[in-house]
Amino acid sequence: MKFISFEIDGRASCGIQQGDSVHDLSPAFPGQAYDLKALITRDLLGEAMAYARSHEATLRLADIKLLPVIPNPEKIICVGLNYGEHVRETGREVTESPTLFLRVPSSQLAHGAALVRPAESARFDYEGEIAIIIGRGGRRIAASDAWSHIAGYACYNDGSIRDWQMATSQWTAGKNFWRTGAFGPWMTSADEIPPGQVMTLVTRLNGEEMQRTTTNKMIHNIPQQIAYISTFVPLAPGDVIVTGTPGGVGAKRNPPVFMKHGDVVEIEVDAIGVLRNTVCDENLLAEA
Amino acid sequence: MKFISFEIDGRASCGIQQGDSVHDLSPAFPGQAYDLKALITRDLLGEAMAYARSHEATLRLADIKLLPVIPNPEKIICVGLNYGEHVRETGREVTESPTLFLRVPSSQLAHGAALVRPAESARFDYEGEIAIIIGRGGRRIAASDAWSHIAGYACYNDGSIRDWQMATSQWTAGKNFWRTGAFGPWMTSADEIPPGQVMTLVTRLNGEEMQRTTTNKMIHNIPQQIAYISTFVPLAPGDVIVTGTPGGVGAKRNPPVFMKHGDVVEIEVDAIGVLRNTVCDENLLAEA
Repeated sequence: MKFISFEIDGRASCGIQQGDSVHDLSPAFPGQAYDLKALITRDLLGEAMAYARSHEATLRLADIKLLPVIPNPEKIICVGLNYGEHVRETGREVTESPTLFLRVPSSQLAHGAALVRPAESARFDYEGEIAIIIGRGGRRIAASDAWSHIAGYACYNDGSIRDWQMATSQWTAGKNFWRTGAFGPWMTSADEIPPGQVMTLVTRLNGEEMQRTTTNKMIHNIPQQIAYISTFVPLAPGDVIVTGTPGGVGAKRNPPVFMKHGDVVEIEVDAIGVLRNTVCDENLLAEA
Repeated sequence: MKFISFEIDGRASCGIQQGDSVHDLSPAFPGQAYDLKALITRDLLGEAMAYARSHEATLRLADIKLLPVIPNPEKIICVGLNYGEHVRETGREVTESPTLFLRVPSSQLAHGAALVRPAESARFDYEGEIAIIIGRGGRRIAASDAWSHIAGYACYNDGSIRDWQMATSQWTAGKNFWRTGAFGPWMTSADEIPPGQVMTLVTRLNGEEMQRTTTNKMIHNIPQQIAYISTFVPLAPGDVIVTGTPGGVGAKRNPPVFMKHGDVVEIEVDAIGVLRNTVCDENLLAEA
């Protein structure tokens, strides 16, 4: 099923989306104010799905405000340089270990929300990716057990401010501008995507295909990522692993392509759905 | 005053340390379960200090279990390569922008707790630093306003697993091993350290001085760090900025020096105090 985080009437909740309807999960767990991370932590996704199967949806998608799939992850670990074509276009080399960087939660935004282009740079680039949401946490998880630690999958646009990313050896600043990392539209629960299923990932900018790959082309596959990361840090329920972008990023095109106000970016993963966002200059944001 | 986070009888709290005594702040805010981050967020440090001045301390330091100063920061932003001597010993060059990386909360440990050396590496290095704890949050904070956004200061040992740090271009893995970043012994509130006061930072390994500097030698000073970071991401109350290590790290000595089981590391900042930890091999940890 499709798990979402949302707000309605100023209240945060989580739910299950079915077409244009939404099962609000707050009534499913009376007396508790569970967000999606808490639901995952308490191993209640199955109970939530049973609730959705036995109840009518009470909300309309049009009436809620989506949030990033997990608005408050303890950590967001991103894998860089994980497809050969992207490694080649950056002029770097394949490394034995995955290249990792971190995002902070406030760098995220929801499906449908504005991808914010800051006044500080005109070099705002897309990166279509597949995100894993961790279900069962753990340390030193064996690759052979890794699939059982996944709660679900989502699309991710690892929006990057290229000049700030490359200003020093560490990419942190350019990967953490406020509301540059789109995460949605929902979490497809892991029961719908069998372990190792080959997924196709496509990025479109204003309808034009910019990136395309399949997950069997990852240099460090999903179980290897989980095993590597959990070697140094305990993975916690709700943690997000963003699994890498394929070739075709804007900065490495000739001529380079950067996102500008009004551009529409779509990240489509066949097994999940389409994450769609419109770029908005920060000084034109209604809420700015 | 000296703010601490701690556990007693399985309950987490925060307090103010005075010598061997501790003012538990839970009774100061009845009906609330404030941790130190919440206290900062609600701008209650002044009220807490007034409480400590007008009440007797109820706990003994020996009876509590210290936690990292802020156990649950929204983000921990570390500045690399911020003293000339350290830039030179790494063979890198000074950059116009600060070099930033992130730590995750579970990589932290308290004053007095074990600095955990994982089985995966023998290249565990110290990095003495000064940590800032953000009080008032904000975006695009002007350097001239930056001091007013600081709640306090602490010592930090940015423990680094060097081979994992250098396995790829991004330092994330080697900077985020479980319980390698010591944060303590307390937060000295900003009212005790005037803006721009020159602080002396010393690292000792088994009593021998390994690093020494003064904060006027920072390449990117504290206001510049706050201004730069808050340009891309909103700083939130309780956020931690770890301001960089001076020359003398173990990996760059001839011969290199790495920390081993039983070693005692002290990070001393004259204006704050001494953060002391003993290194423990992970497989010898009582709780492992």
